[in-house]
Amino acid sequence: MRRLATIVAALAGMGAVACATAPAASAELRQFWVAATPAPTWNMAPNERDAIHNMPLSPSQTVFPTVVYRRYTKDWGHPIPNQPTGSSNQDLIPGPLLRARAGDRIYVHFKNLDTLYKRPHSMHFHGVHYKPSSDGAYVPGISGRDGNVKPGQTWTYKLTAGSDSVGVWPYHDHSPSMEDSIAGGMYGMLSILGKGQPRPDREFEVVFAPMGDFQTIDGRAFVGNTPVFTSVVGQTIQWDVMAMGSEHHTFHVHGHRWKSPFGTDVDTQTVGPAETFAIRWKEEDPGTWLYHCHVEAHMMAGMIGIYHVRPK
Amino acid sequence: MRRLATIVAALAGMGAVACATAPAASAELRQFWVAATPAPTWNMAPNERDAIHNMPLSPSQTVFPTVVYRRYTKDWGHPIPNQPTGSSNQDLIPGPLLRARAGDRIYVHFKNLDTLYKRPHSMHFHGVHYKPSSDGAYVPGISGRDGNVKPGQTWTYKLTAGSDSVGVWPYHDHSPSMEDSIAGGMYGMLSILGKGQPRPDREFEVVFAPMGDFQTIDGRAFVGNTPVFTSVVGQTIQWDVMAMGSEHHTFHVHGHRWKSPFGTDVDTQTVGPAETFAIRWKEEDPGTWLYHCHVEAHMMAGMIGIYHVRPK
Amino acid sequence: MRRLATIVAALAGMGAVACATAPAASAELRQFWVAATPAPTWNMAPNERDAIHNMPLSPSQTVFPTVVYRRYTKDWGHPIPNQPTGSSNQDLIPGPLLRARAGDRIYVHFKNLDTLYKRPHSMHFHGVHYKPSSDGAYVPGISGRDGNVKPGQTWTYKLTAGSDSVGVWPYHDHSPSMEDSIAGGMYGMLSILGKGQPRPDREFEVVFAPMGDFQTIDGRAFVGNTPVFTSVVGQTIQWDVMAMGSEHHTFHVHGHRWKSPFGTDVDTQTVGPAETFAIRWKEEDPGTWLYHCHVEAHMMAGMIGIYHVRPK
Repeated sequence: MRRLATIVAALAGMGAVACATAPAASAELRQFWVAATPAPTWNMAPNERDAIHNMPLSPSQTVFPTVVYRRYTKDWGHPIPNQPTGSSNQDLIPGPLLRARAGDRIYVHFKNLDTLYKRPHSMHFHGVHYKPSSDGAYVPGISGRDGNVKPGQTWTYKLTAGSDSVGVWPYHDHSPSMEDSIAGGMYGMLSILGKGQPRPDREFEVVFAPMGDFQTIDGRAFVGNTPVFTSVVGQTIQWDVMAMGSEHHTFHVHGHRWKSPFGTDVDTQTVGPAETFAIRWKEEDPGTWLYHCHVEAHMMAGMIGIYHVRPK
Repeated sequence: MRRLATIVAALAGMGAVACATAPAASAELRQFWVAATPAPTWNMAPNERDAIHNMPLSPSQTVFPTVVYRRYTKDWGHPIPNQPTGSSNQDLIPGPLLRARAGDRIYVHFKNLDTLYKRPHSMHFHGVHYKPSSDGAYVPGISGRDGNVKPGQTWTYKLTAGSDSVGVWPYHDHSPSMEDSIAGGMYGMLSILGKGQPRPDREFEVVFAPMGDFQTIDGRAFVGNTPVFTSVVGQTIQWDVMAMGSEHHTFHVHGHRWKSPFGTDVDTQTVGPAETFAIRWKEEDPGTWLYHCHVEAHMMAGMIGIYHVRPK
Repeated sequence: MRRLATIVAALAGMGAVACATAPAASAELRQFWVAATPAPTWNMAPNERDAIHNMPLSPSQTVFPTVVYRRYTKDWGHPIPNQPTGSSNQDLIPGPLLRARAGDRIYVHFKNLDTLYKRPHSMHFHGVHYKPSSDGAYVPGISGRDGNVKPGQTWTYKLTAGSDSVGVWPYHDHSPSMEDSIAGGMYGMLSILGKGQPRPDREFEVVFAPMGDFQTIDGRAFVGNTPVFTSVVGQTIQWDVMAMGSEHHTFHVHGHRWKSPFGTDVDTQTVGPAETFAIRWKEEDPGTWLYHCHVEAHMMAGMIGIYHVRPK
């Protein structure tokens, strides 16, 4: 009880916001309903502008009919936002942010509603404990239905968050269609807190991935289309950074530094395909800042966005 | 004596297997005889199958006549397996696994038996101490015979493992032919233990490198050709991971996590050309798992294999 | 006073050389005058030789008319060497090595003297604290003159080195011309010491970046053109390593090892675009050694140099 009180006090003191699921004092079962659903008019650049080269873009270049992960209410009743209320990015890419705490069991109920391409799909999770039947990867002659969920079918992935699962982790399609599906945005993140770890005030998801001829953040390209993340001086903010695809990236935020995983101060950090890291700091620097991939060709192809910090 | 007893007891307690060289209680001289020898029918995919795209492959696509490092008995008497008895990969690529302990001196006697291409060759070692005459790299106008061993010639590389040499390290051709030779598989690893460090029960070598149009692990492409690594629940296993060539990779094992070099939990880790890392865990998860490079284009071009864990 | 005496004694004991600015006992204001100036005959390979493939190179392949950062005396009176007296590389690429200590304020007075291409330029600094008006990055509709300094104009960037700024950091053009300007060598480094941290005896700057068809170190390609770094046994040496452009590299030095940022021993370390690291060791190994990028295609395209250690 004393421990619970401490945690609650800590959370209150940080002004935590936007918890879709209440922080758990003890291990619990968290259930999510997710479907593969068509996004036939996904537009990487709705403002029709390449703000780096100051050039127009037409929808014929930037609309990418695709299939995405989408969060649903219980038993796939109706779709709900992929990210929790108050999140900075309510879009369909990346897929639902699946939050849990060390010790929790997690059931992800998956349904393949791909009526656009009628492909098989699956979910393969990093960072958590599971049996081979929840692996979600297709291997000819070895794997079962978990790695090859056909249109109309369902599968429940049963996962456990260990003490070695704290942090952020990828999930993604690992079925026979994975090449096309990942290229189309079928990826998302698990965000797992330690038992007494306070939730940040703001949590920003940044997924670096190519899409067609562009280099995108969360499926969007160029300032004006990529997510605008916002915070207020004094808040604790967390960046959940991940890459998918075939290229290495370097995540950079202007005017800020953070502790790298190994304890040194950095402001640019490599992230390769399926690598992830969570960065936290207490915000002190008001202004409009850039965040971007520092691989120059990627930034020039759209991998750049705005982070806005309001004074207190 | 007390210290020796402790080490032996520790090793016995771990059920250590497959030590080609006995664990040393004190520093010793370890000698190896290695030759560059032809492998004129090396086949990257002996099963003639691309198991990712479920397509046939013909030997005309996958046979790659090459020259490799091969281990010999004393004074190059006769060839012996590159990897110690009981190893999971008895193939010719990578070259011999050279094991030592901190404090040891290591003599590697090298002979160029390249009758296939008649190229010069050499061995350049990472991680160990040596004088310039054992560097093995060719620099016009500077280097001696160590970096340019002609067909029929020999050279002895004299190395010392310091306390800063613990871990796994690359060796590779650094002669005038290095571009072709590394592309053909002329690389291998040193595996150096700390003075009292127990040897793992199982040691798996994973070298990510391109070969022709494919992306290979230990010179093989696609599940069914790449090494199948095996262990039993309860064993301590070690992955020796390395990359050679011009690309960065991300090493991933399904259903497992490990401590990164900086102490965080990961299941995907970047490895660039000539970088290496050794990962250890005590096995707890029975099943048939995938290990692969998570750079998607590499996995699709063959960089994927099977890891099988039997119940106790 | 006792603390100051300790620092001075430590520096004296290390035989520190080549301090352009005296070590500070307390925080100070450091001012630098830098200009963007033409280098119309920059030659990546003045010796007209590809020493890797042993082939001739002609100036038509290797001369690259460009614009660089150049250090000046106060109020841009006259140009002075980019690197401090005694440095191993007195060339114009990279730009001036800007040295400071944690706690210092730093003013960089920048003037655009680009009469060659008449492009806008800027300076964007990593690792230090500043307000948005000193960010130096151009964002359409948001940024001011700091990110878009036109020919003939000036701007003063006002920076502060915090305790989280210790290490080496990039600066580079982030104006509308950044693609061309970075490709032409408009980058350099900040080198910031902790408050009581002794300066190394030798400090070597290694910037990996493509230029035209070559892969360069400090704007030069191949042994004979890239910097020759020198030291004497017993000296403390520091490598300042950075990458610019769109590719990841692996920095390797023959015959030496160092502690990676996470405390393990390595001799090859990944550095991605805008990542930096400072490596220190006390020199013990006399000889002529290679340092190079271990990405094979990069080394073959010129990214390799000589490090010479004289006996004591």
